[in-house]
Amino acid sequence: MSQAIQTPEWVRDAVFYQIFPDRFAKSERVVKPSNLEAWDEPPTVFGFKGGDLLGVEERLDYLIDLGINAIYFNPIFQSASNHRYHTHDYFQVDPLLGGDDAFRTLLDAAHARGVRVVLDGVFNHCSRGFFQFNHLLECGAQSPYVSWFTPYHFPLNAYDEDHEPNYAAWWNLHALPKFNTNNPQVREFLWTIGEYWVRFGIDGWRLDVPYEIDDDAFWQEFRLRVKSANPDTYIVGEIWRESQRWLQGDQFDAVMNYIFTRAATAFFGAQTLAAVTPGGGYPPLKPLNAEVFAAEMDRMLGLYDWAITSAQLNLLGSHDTARFLYMVGGDKSALRLATLFQMAMPGAPSIYYGDEIGLTGGHEPASRGAMPWDESAWDQGLRADFQRAIALRHANPALRRGTYRTLLARGAHFAFLREHEGQRLIVVFNTSKDQQTLTIPVGDTPGGPRAIFGEPVALRRDDANIVLAAPGRSGIVLALDS
Amino acid sequence: MSQAIQTPEWVRDAVFYQIFPDRFAKSERVVKPSNLEAWDEPPTVFGFKGGDLLGVEERLDYLIDLGINAIYFNPIFQSASNHRYHTHDYFQVDPLLGGDDAFRTLLDAAHARGVRVVLDGVFNHCSRGFFQFNHLLECGAQSPYVSWFTPYHFPLNAYDEDHEPNYAAWWNLHALPKFNTNNPQVREFLWTIGEYWVRFGIDGWRLDVPYEIDDDAFWQEFRLRVKSANPDTYIVGEIWRESQRWLQGDQFDAVMNYIFTRAATAFFGAQTLAAVTPGGGYPPLKPLNAEVFAAEMDRMLGLYDWAITSAQLNLLGSHDTARFLYMVGGDKSALRLATLFQMAMPGAPSIYYGDEIGLTGGHEPASRGAMPWDESAWDQGLRADFQRAIALRHANPALRRGTYRTLLARGAHFAFLREHEGQRLIVVFNTSKDQQTLTIPVGDTPGGPRAIFGEPVALRRDDANIVLAAPGRSGIVLALDS
Repeated sequence: MSQAIQTPEWVRDAVFYQIFPDRFAKSERVVKPSNLEAWDEPPTVFGFKGGDLLGVEERLDYLIDLGINAIYFNPIFQSASNHRYHTHDYFQVDPLLGGDDAFRTLLDAAHARGVRVVLDGVFNHCSRGFFQFNHLLECGAQSPYVSWFTPYHFPLNAYDEDHEPNYAAWWNLHALPKFNTNNPQVREFLWTIGEYWVRFGIDGWRLDVPYEIDDDAFWQEFRLRVKSANPDTYIVGEIWRESQRWLQGDQFDAVMNYIFTRAATAFFGAQTLAAVTPGGGYPPLKPLNAEVFAAEMDRMLGLYDWAITSAQLNLLGSHDTARFLYMVGGDKSALRLATLFQMAMPGAPSIYYGDEIGLTGGHEPASRGAMPWDESAWDQGLRADFQRAIALRHANPALRRGTYRTLLARGAHFAFLREHEGQRLIVVFNTSKDQQTLTIPVGDTPGGPRAIFGEPVALRRDDANIVLAAPGRSGIVLALDS
Repeated sequence: MSQAIQTPEWVRDAVFYQIFPDRFAKSERVVKPSNLEAWDEPPTVFGFKGGDLLGVEERLDYLIDLGINAIYFNPIFQSASNHRYHTHDYFQVDPLLGGDDAFRTLLDAAHARGVRVVLDGVFNHCSRGFFQFNHLLECGAQSPYVSWFTPYHFPLNAYDEDHEPNYAAWWNLHALPKFNTNNPQVREFLWTIGEYWVRFGIDGWRLDVPYEIDDDAFWQEFRLRVKSANPDTYIVGEIWRESQRWLQGDQFDAVMNYIFTRAATAFFGAQTLAAVTPGGGYPPLKPLNAEVFAAEMDRMLGLYDWAITSAQLNLLGSHDTARFLYMVGGDKSALRLATLFQMAMPGAPSIYYGDEIGLTGGHEPASRGAMPWDESAWDQGLRADFQRAIALRHANPALRRGTYRTLLARGAHFAFLREHEGQRLIVVFNTSKDQQTLTIPVGDTPGGPRAIFGEPVALRRDDANIVLAAPGRSGIVLALDS
């Protein structure tokens, strides 16, 4: 790429909230079938709670009050699974969610209030009920759609789970037939979906397992299509590892930053880490000290062009992981510190719904519980801390657009500088349980320190250092006023 | 019903053409997948030829030239079967047919040229890929849609054809799950389909196996819904037998008149009848003489209110039967005579596509061959005779709206009077192979006879009789001019 890499400017200012549509909020206005699970019972693998998009619309006040200005939705298209990754129809919003009309209402209401909406695009595979695949089940080798998939022989054994599927399927799961994306008509079909919903008004696509379509040209054309429809469209891939291949400016704007997730969990949760797998096929996390954590952050921030890094989706958890609180053995101080860190770093923070009120749960289905709307079930203090950390990001351009430099990384102490157009902020963490004094080398960076977030026990500038007495498990943000 | 029974006035003036969409005409403008069968090879049970709705639009000239002013389409909604009775999505026209856009184009073009369009509605059952049924396959007893169907136990064995289906299915066919039409949401769903497409612009519904929804209230509400959307909507049920229950004015306007089909085939084809089942579960036909045929016609015409009888769909064959020509052992004179009879009787004639050029074929799939567009494959003389018979109906109100009275029924001789607002027409058939003289008693019915169709060898009025020398295998229409 000789051109400068471009990513959507708005993402730098976004604070995302990830919503699992069946579990966030349920509106009386959407007529539902009868056999739904009770909202407040534990989630199950196959059950539906009946959350919908008008429910989300009715809770926009809640999101805006929290400081949210972007939503990432898990899939909303017609699908016979509660997570809706098994797409039945890419051109229809699921009727249980209220259908296209409900989505139109929500999208317009969100936009009217400055909230962007990113959808989940599942383009590698579909479901057994998807029309063109169902065609092969019904018509066998005589279906005109045989080349949309990769059948090995007929009849297809899609519902015979005692034998390996005799067609290409994601992870060899019968339920997830893989598209033959070498077929030009399939490519066109998938690109058209991308374009269709952007023209409908969405602000971005989160791409499910895009590395499974191992084809740069496919994603390059996908980008051209959606960016032609709206150049501000955000394209964020679900890739858990280093993703240089896709982040050269011609495919995705960003990836879901699970490198961030893992490191932040292991550092802020170091003292209480649960011995569980975080999800995504990773081994259990091991505690990190500040030295290793800082090195990992430096490495992470150096992986990609700054335009990409500034648009990364920084998350502490998702529908694919245990919840952060669960990962850190229920220690809410770890969640508070990590959230402040998330709000202070380059890249767009993404909050997994309910984390802010203290929802917890292990890997799916437990991590996908229904959001309680009885406020007595909320940790109001935790939520207030989320609000304050989010507000801090919104108020300070340096946190969204500033350069990054590690200043201190020793044991439980970690501090870094964010600087943008004369604004200089130092973000400091004391992750030990005790009050400690941190000496933060700032060199000749000008300005006297002033705490704008958190409450230092003592604070002074001493030549080339800031000396700070910080309470145990605290995060403090200092402004270096000129 | 204390009110007079109402059926759409336009049906009295309609000459229908039944189109099996995969087999009538194929447009270059509809992009198709690759695996289609050759157009001119014999049809198969599972294969697709790729006919589409723009193809029909491109052949409107042909239909209008033939005299057609209404089309009855076999199902056009998204379906993984070449006949499309296995509905996958009731709200989308099948992509192989060109989708909703192609249907819009065709419908507008047809309407602009005075051609009405009736669709096939399959409301008793759906397909295994239909979203709400697929939901039960994927989510089992936890699906919110369990009460849309009648599962006996889970998991459903929809694709295990070695065992009886463990859910209610039409004719116990795995492929055709039966709706639970006692569920208010299912009822509403089905009525909404009915209304939706009428508002889209269609002129009527042919209802597939409506007796299987054994529920007068269901069809009464269906009628109210579609007639509210457009009072001129034609509702014609697929009921092969006497149908008084549905033809009281509060459910259907008409049924597919297979009583007519059977009798006409057995009388006009008496000399060459093939020993085959006509379809629809009927036993093979036995030849009828004019005495029995006339009695059957009198019985038929007396079954229902005249408003119903005038709107009946009189057909000589359909996708569900062997073609007429096949039934009569290939004797085209039988087809000519029966077509003239069809055009001369109360009720709307319906021509099964291709009959007019001499297509033949036994029960499905043979009866569903592709329409050849190479005119060298056509019987042009037969087609001209169809044109003339159709034109006769259009030109003579007595054939469309007149009263009916049998005048002569003896052996191979059959004649009847149609009379409307002073127009009196006598329709005469000599079905024997030889020229014969018929004496037709007309009593004091005034007017001298004049042949307006066919060529009598001799013709005179003799007091209370018309004496006519008619060629073998001929149909003649006489006007009694005042």
